[in-house]
Amino acid sequence: MDAEIIAVGSELLTPFRLDTNSLFLTSKLNSLGIEVRFKTVVGDDPVPLAEAFGTALKRSRLIILTGGLGPTEDDRTREVVSEVLGRPLHENEEIRARIEKRYKRLNREMPPNNLRQALVPEGADWLENNNGTAPGIWMEHDGIIILLLPGPPWELEAMFDSLGMARLACVAGNERIRSRVYKVVGLPESEVDHRIAPLYRPYQNPTTTILACPGAIEVHLRARAASESEGDALLDDLGDKIEMALGDHVFSARGESLEEVVGIYLVMKQQTLAVAESCTGGLLSERLTRIPGSSDFFLGGVVCYSNKLKTKLAGVPADWIEQHGAVSGVVAQAMSEGIRKRAGASLGVGVTGIAGPGGGLVEKPVGLVFIGLSDSRSTTVRQFQFPGTRERIRQWASQMALEMIRRKVRE
Amino acid sequence: MDAEIIAVGSELLTPFRLDTNSLFLTSKLNSLGIEVRFKTVVGDDPVPLAEAFGTALKRSRLIILTGGLGPTEDDRTREVVSEVLGRPLHENEEIRARIEKRYKRLNREMPPNNLRQALVPEGADWLENNNGTAPGIWMEHDGIIILLLPGPPWELEAMFDSLGMARLACVAGNERIRSRVYKVVGLPESEVDHRIAPLYRPYQNPTTTILACPGAIEVHLRARAASESEGDALLDDLGDKIEMALGDHVFSARGESLEEVVGIYLVMKQQTLAVAESCTGGLLSERLTRIPGSSDFFLGGVVCYSNKLKTKLAGVPADWIEQHGAVSGVVAQAMSEGIRKRAGASLGVGVTGIAGPGGGLVEKPVGLVFIGLSDSRSTTVRQFQFPGTRERIRQWASQMALEMIRRKVRE
Repeated sequence: MDAEIIAVGSELLTPFRLDTNSLFLTSKLNSLGIEVRFKTVVGDDPVPLAEAFGTALKRSRLIILTGGLGPTEDDRTREVVSEVLGRPLHENEEIRARIEKRYKRLNREMPPNNLRQALVPEGADWLENNNGTAPGIWMEHDGIIILLLPGPPWELEAMFDSLGMARLACVAGNERIRSRVYKVVGLPESEVDHRIAPLYRPYQNPTTTILACPGAIEVHLRARAASESEGDALLDDLGDKIEMALGDHVFSARGESLEEVVGIYLVMKQQTLAVAESCTGGLLSERLTRIPGSSDFFLGGVVCYSNKLKTKLAGVPADWIEQHGAVSGVVAQAMSEGIRKRAGASLGVGVTGIAGPGGGLVEKPVGLVFIGLSDSRSTTVRQFQFPGTRERIRQWASQMALEMIRRKVRE
Repeated sequence: MDAEIIAVGSELLTPFRLDTNSLFLTSKLNSLGIEVRFKTVVGDDPVPLAEAFGTALKRSRLIILTGGLGPTEDDRTREVVSEVLGRPLHENEEIRARIEKRYKRLNREMPPNNLRQALVPEGADWLENNNGTAPGIWMEHDGIIILLLPGPPWELEAMFDSLGMARLACVAGNERIRSRVYKVVGLPESEVDHRIAPLYRPYQNPTTTILACPGAIEVHLRARAASESEGDALLDDLGDKIEMALGDHVFSARGESLEEVVGIYLVMKQQTLAVAESCTGGLLSERLTRIPGSSDFFLGGVVCYSNKLKTKLAGVPADWIEQHGAVSGVVAQAMSEGIRKRAGASLGVGVTGIAGPGGGLVEKPVGLVFIGLSDSRSTTVRQFQFPGTRERIRQWASQMALEMIRRKVRE
């Protein structure tokens, strides 16, 4: 069974908003073996909406419409679906009672508009919304399944998880799609492909896709099989070979970010970390503290943008800065050693570089970054030349600092 | 003239990737008065691609296809468009010569596949690609304009800016769409709507949309007019009233982020800033240093996750932490004063709170955040209770810290 997702909302046709609900839905549908073949975005205007829905009826066996179920006159999904299918809307007593009760509980007067949400196309089922007023709708028409879901992600996700998945599981085939993502750091895309192409080429199933992300390469495998365990066995078969070929450049096979992997290792080895950042400006600390419970391994850090603060907060000798410049290997080293000692951490990291767009020189161009990593015995300093914008250089620098920590802690 | 955008690429039908090219294209098309009515995503499979393109031919006068122009067998956009229109592909000598020259310059052997990129449908024009090998294609068919652009954003954007816009400007109508975004902080969405609904309701043109973002509300105005200046006059007319009604809660009317506005004010007033962060973990520093040239006003900061570092790096008296807890008004105050003095900055900020998901207590629940802001004369401390996930609480906390700085520096 193939699916089509139609996202309804005029804001999704502006330069300011993307339909992200389809990512959630695709992931869930894939787990039931359902592929998404088309995604369409239309505004709240009923004419293009009817056009898009009519087109979908001709080519898809499962159609999911998201958005346009609210109480205002802009919300037209319900009406358009009813008209295109020729199945008139009827007020549903139970929904009406629930909406009225909800308003009573909130002690607010119900705007009469809200009753539009109690309208259901003839012969359709409705799906309860525990996070808002607009119910979802499930209907079948000439062998096609049509599912209407509210637009706000928290409403859509809860409704689809609790009600949509169970109903779809009954009608979906027995096939399942299983997928796995290997995240790779420290190898360029061409080298990843060179190493693994001879391995994945003989396979039609799983399929393999290589995607480049900032600071990492992702290898996506997708397998179709009669069951989840059979699918996983197919993934293991090819996946193990790929992992072997890429070696310890693979930092994750279960979706973890690099900072999560680093955190897991640090906790496992009972080590702690402190960082001193210049050009990354707090990004490295920010990434490490995204992880719930990061206080178990992350003690803190300093963002020493000015030279004075490099000395004051990270203990970099002022004459080293004067002699070698703030962007230099010795300063990265001193930052990593200084912050380690001050914080009393097992490991210290220092990052200094030129993120641009200004400030570059011939001998020290934009993108030049030094990263120091020290423990109680020694300090390693690496020099990098990153390409791209200020944002990408900062992203790369934080990524390679995490990678240096990962390799150190794995030892 | 209305447009339809078809994004081609199997990775865009997975849970891992979104079509973002359409945001760039929509913004450019709008500036020429062209509205996007439909966006479709299809995979590299020629059958659904032909279906989607055929559907577009029936309903749109301008069709832009992005992606699927590369050298591999997966790239089918060129072939499918040629087949659906019945306009066979011919090799273009000039493109062939350019591709060959490119490889020669790079001193690499050209894989024969690459010559597929020299194929152009009968009667079509090609658009030079200065950032890759796949040229774009411009063709007209039964009064419909069809534009094929390469998928990588840097190739697509450069090509569209240099060649696509000029050609479209010739065929687009004289109407222009102008838009403006007012960014609002410190008011809930309902209050924003309550204040401005009586102002925008009488207007059909511009149209008004209110969108909630993390830590801010955006008011989007769009005006259609016979010229840019007429459009801007329409925006000014309604926009001035809206700005008046929202007062100094509006921090930007030209697209700047809150951190950019803060940076502009600080430079203008020749003030400097240093920050001490606990629960935001570096996010506040990171946001401030996203701005090129932030070293002009941002001296640096500390991320003091552990209590020991709150004392050591930000000078918070250890007995204050013991007495009041690390998450308290007095600690936020001491952090802001301590970092200001150590960094020698005009302003100091201290942020301490519970980002969750763990660590909450009845008297100090997840989402509780204290922010201190100090200058040479005094310190202000505000207490917040933010809703949502760890990520949202951190985002809100950094946003309100920036807002406190903005209000202080505007004084």
